[in-house]
Amino acid sequence: MSIAFQGERGAFTELAAIQYFGGKEKTMAFAQWEDVFEAVEKRKATFGIIPIENSLGGSIHRNYDLLLHHDLFITGEIYLKISQFLLANKGLGIRQVKRVFSIPQAFEQCRDYFKRNPHMQCVPVSNTAAAAKKIKEDRLMDAAAVSSMQAAIDYDLKILARDIEDNKENITRFLILSINQAAPRGTHPMKTSVVFALKNIAGALFRSLSVFALRDINLLKIESRPVHGKPFEYLFYLDFSGSEHDEAQSNAINHLREITVSCRVLGSYPVGRLAHPEYKKR
Amino acid sequence: MSIAFQGERGAFTELAAIQYFGGKEKTMAFAQWEDVFEAVEKRKATFGIIPIENSLGGSIHRNYDLLLHHDLFITGEIYLKISQFLLANKGLGIRQVKRVFSIPQAFEQCRDYFKRNPHMQCVPVSNTAAAAKKIKEDRLMDAAAVSSMQAAIDYDLKILARDIEDNKENITRFLILSINQAAPRGTHPMKTSVVFALKNIAGALFRSLSVFALRDINLLKIESRPVHGKPFEYLFYLDFSGSEHDEAQSNAINHLREITVSCRVLGSYPVGRLAHPEYKKR
Repeated sequence: MSIAFQGERGAFTELAAIQYFGGKEKTMAFAQWEDVFEAVEKRKATFGIIPIENSLGGSIHRNYDLLLHHDLFITGEIYLKISQFLLANKGLGIRQVKRVFSIPQAFEQCRDYFKRNPHMQCVPVSNTAAAAKKIKEDRLMDAAAVSSMQAAIDYDLKILARDIEDNKENITRFLILSINQAAPRGTHPMKTSVVFALKNIAGALFRSLSVFALRDINLLKIESRPVHGKPFEYLFYLDFSGSEHDEAQSNAINHLREITVSCRVLGSYPVGRLAHPEYKKR
Repeated sequence: MSIAFQGERGAFTELAAIQYFGGKEKTMAFAQWEDVFEAVEKRKATFGIIPIENSLGGSIHRNYDLLLHHDLFITGEIYLKISQFLLANKGLGIRQVKRVFSIPQAFEQCRDYFKRNPHMQCVPVSNTAAAAKKIKEDRLMDAAAVSSMQAAIDYDLKILARDIEDNKENITRFLILSINQAAPRGTHPMKTSVVFALKNIAGALFRSLSVFALRDINLLKIESRPVHGKPFEYLFYLDFSGSEHDEAQSNAINHLREITVSCRVLGSYPVGRLAHPEYKKR
């Protein structure tokens, strides 16, 4: 069994995969999100994992687009707490740090920390794992990296400060992708993700939500997105509780198809848990 | 009159401000989004401008949070087409480019272009304007920058390639902020943005949308967001047509307040247009 992800070894997406699958499976790093979809479609990988939304940044429309353009199923989800660490070579004190390497998004997430430490100059690099690798390989004794704790282990670095992000509620939701549908998991609660298109949104959205309200089906996420080049046409992302194979849910989906321009079920899968990354020597 | 924005001179947010206000007003650059809100609150700037959603990246929750934490009104909006250009010093040909400077997001947006040009190595820097400035000031004759066309003008660079982004439908929506409410603009169509919180989402969302459906008010955007630390409580961002001072809309808002945990009107403002950045010698 192998799991395709986008990024480098030690990236948060890989940590999410380890939490979801248990850590014994082979993870395969790819440069682009699209490569992850292709790896699963061409059976180079058993599963793929992609980030789909973040508690600060919102939904990643680009990955919803890729879900629509590929014939894969969502078979699971996991929520991962994102924590940033300040790492350096052993022997270096926090006062000696003059430069800090990381990605611009990490600097943005740790704004207050760098305001309180104006002696540290932020230097952007392409990813957080590369930042840790650089200070290790170049044996830099005036520089640190903002990275995950996994990078501290992978590159044998010292932790100068932990959880330095401003907002402690930084959580990313990841989806697990497969060429097969998810098997029901006993009595574990399920959820279903659909994407549908509507014209004439005023009454149409209300009617489309009525197919769930009339059947007492809980909505877990709703998001509209304008279809570019088609004014007054909207795409909706909807998550609701239950499986598409449950009777009420199955009827609701059939009802929904009657009143939408297009409608696609992306998958029914077990409701995910919130995980904190675990770090392992490897 | 002055307009606060986050970023550097020539950033897309500044170009959006120029398109919205006409280009005669003074623009003031700030390091962080929060600084923009503070500048308007403390009357250091007349208006602020912030990105709120992107057609590929989705809504920027962080800026919705800042809207909730500050007492400002949305008084306008503008949609800007984002186009990326490859810029270099004069005399340099496209075959001679070995390194390209820009932000990681810009490389991600131009993925296909760099796949077709594997001789170009991507080097991340902190912002696109800084990339243009660097190749100019260091007189680099083996390097280019991915940046806006405004940077080509500001730093007197040559355009090696234009519109190199993969997805031509890259549009960002910006909001205009003020300490005063927007004045109605004759017969120009208006829209209103509200944020509200709901418990027990199944029936409650359906009922809250009914206050608009029953009054034939068009919904323009809807997005749910879980409230962290409060399971089963959700925040909703909703945009609808009309002004909060119109009779039906005003009744709908009062009705909405009855059935929500909390509800805040962020502003009523003229519906924005889609603008293409214009570039000016300055």
